[in-house]
Amino acid sequence: MTYSAIAEILVIGNEILIGDIQDTNTSWLCGLINSRGGHVARGTMLRDNVDEIAAEVGRALERGADVIFTSGGLGPTADDLTLAAVARGLGLPLELHPEALRMVKEQYDNFHARGIMAQGGLNPGREKMTWLPKGGVPLFNPGGTAPGVLVRKGRTCVISLPGVPSELKGIIEVSLQDFMQQTFGDGGSLGTALRVLCNDESILEPVLGRVVPRHPGVYIKSLASTVGMTPELDITLTVTGGRAEERTALLKAAVEELSRGLTEDGIGFRERA
Amino acid sequence: MTYSAIAEILVIGNEILIGDIQDTNTSWLCGLINSRGGHVARGTMLRDNVDEIAAEVGRALERGADVIFTSGGLGPTADDLTLAAVARGLGLPLELHPEALRMVKEQYDNFHARGIMAQGGLNPGREKMTWLPKGGVPLFNPGGTAPGVLVRKGRTCVISLPGVPSELKGIIEVSLQDFMQQTFGDGGSLGTALRVLCNDESILEPVLGRVVPRHPGVYIKSLASTVGMTPELDITLTVTGGRAEERTALLKAAVEELSRGLTEDGIGFRERA
Repeated sequence: MTYSAIAEILVIGNEILIGDIQDTNTSWLCGLINSRGGHVARGTMLRDNVDEIAAEVGRALERGADVIFTSGGLGPTADDLTLAAVARGLGLPLELHPEALRMVKEQYDNFHARGIMAQGGLNPGREKMTWLPKGGVPLFNPGGTAPGVLVRKGRTCVISLPGVPSELKGIIEVSLQDFMQQTFGDGGSLGTALRVLCNDESILEPVLGRVVPRHPGVYIKSLASTVGMTPELDITLTVTGGRAEERTALLKAAVEELSRGLTEDGIGFRERA
Repeated sequence: MTYSAIAEILVIGNEILIGDIQDTNTSWLCGLINSRGGHVARGTMLRDNVDEIAAEVGRALERGADVIFTSGGLGPTADDLTLAAVARGLGLPLELHPEALRMVKEQYDNFHARGIMAQGGLNPGREKMTWLPKGGVPLFNPGGTAPGVLVRKGRTCVISLPGVPSELKGIIEVSLQDFMQQTFGDGGSLGTALRVLCNDESILEPVLGRVVPRHPGVYIKSLASTVGMTPELDITLTVTGGRAEERTALLKAAVEELSRGLTEDGIGFRERA
């Protein structure tokens, strides 16, 4: 298959790696990118360590990601150092960005006027959030105060988003609609599932071993669950990227051949609702 | 602080990176390791690609992890290739392990006898799960059929676990109790939280900026949430590793100084229940 673009996701924050906070941003971004026809190559969770984050941004650049998303570390406190790390990883200085400064002040004034926050205006922590990697563009955050940041390096685009899920989603949905459309396309994924009357992947393996290699453009996956919980199991089929008619044809052919294979091996199934 | 051991976690499976399955194993492992006094340095989510997995195992080895946990890719189907990748990453051949073979057969016979699975005994998919990196030890899986695998390389230990959460937890709890105790200790983490009457980290930053650098052994973190959802915010304080009396003393000193700092800046707070 031809993917519209390849992404990597870096999730940043000690709170993730001590198990205090369950990251859900990666899975949400993966679903969104896949549904548009893009490909997430890997996700990495990192500590609040500027050297480690900068090094990983550099490696993702070397691996040829079209887009590197970062989640977390954009706030006003000293342990929020994602922008410094992205700048270092891309070999760029940090610069105070006047438009970001205006955006941050306006949002604090707005939250203050609505009675949500005790103070409007600026202070050093708020100003810290407006120092962007040189050439970066601030992305309006409709549900929070830290702007996202988009910065390009060669053919790669680094997009830094807050870790609070509602803010990450808000920036994507409000401030990155055009970017997501242009980069990943829309509606580039098609999927279905067969529910088989079998809870044992070792019985399915001969069928999958015959069918899967004949459909390299379709991701076919049996989803194991806890043994004994149910006598059934889902086999998901997903086509990502390419043109719509191509996706439909590829999926149809794979479903037909998988259905035939299951029947040949005496395994009952139905299309999952 | 002195951590008992440093771990990395590799989560493997396309289903994670297309957003079909939300990974929860990383967070669960992180919480467990942190609570025992260990340190998770990073988590990486990878596709079902033997080269990429093998390369990342090699890099984690170079980074000096004491323990590398892998999650997923141990099953009977062809896309489950974690053991082949771990073997390659460690420079070891795969070998059929007679004890693993006995373990797998016994477990399928057991599930068959209990009416949970249609067939007992062995088949090629089941036998596949018993080819371990040379020198590896199979770990009994109480809730499933794929054994976990423990293999050492120099001072690093690679532990491969199934991706189904109940199976991953079952192996840790039943088959790795002694290992976890010896490697990470027990009860090596102590934490508390202050709930502040402030929803704005930029107001807290001056206090944190004074207090945090004076307590390098305590992880102090303000946890932001969606703006406007609540007028309060938690600051968590966590001490990991070291002796119990040391943890208690470090945490007490940090809580006292943070409380004093909040009071000085006119920010109300209470200890979180």
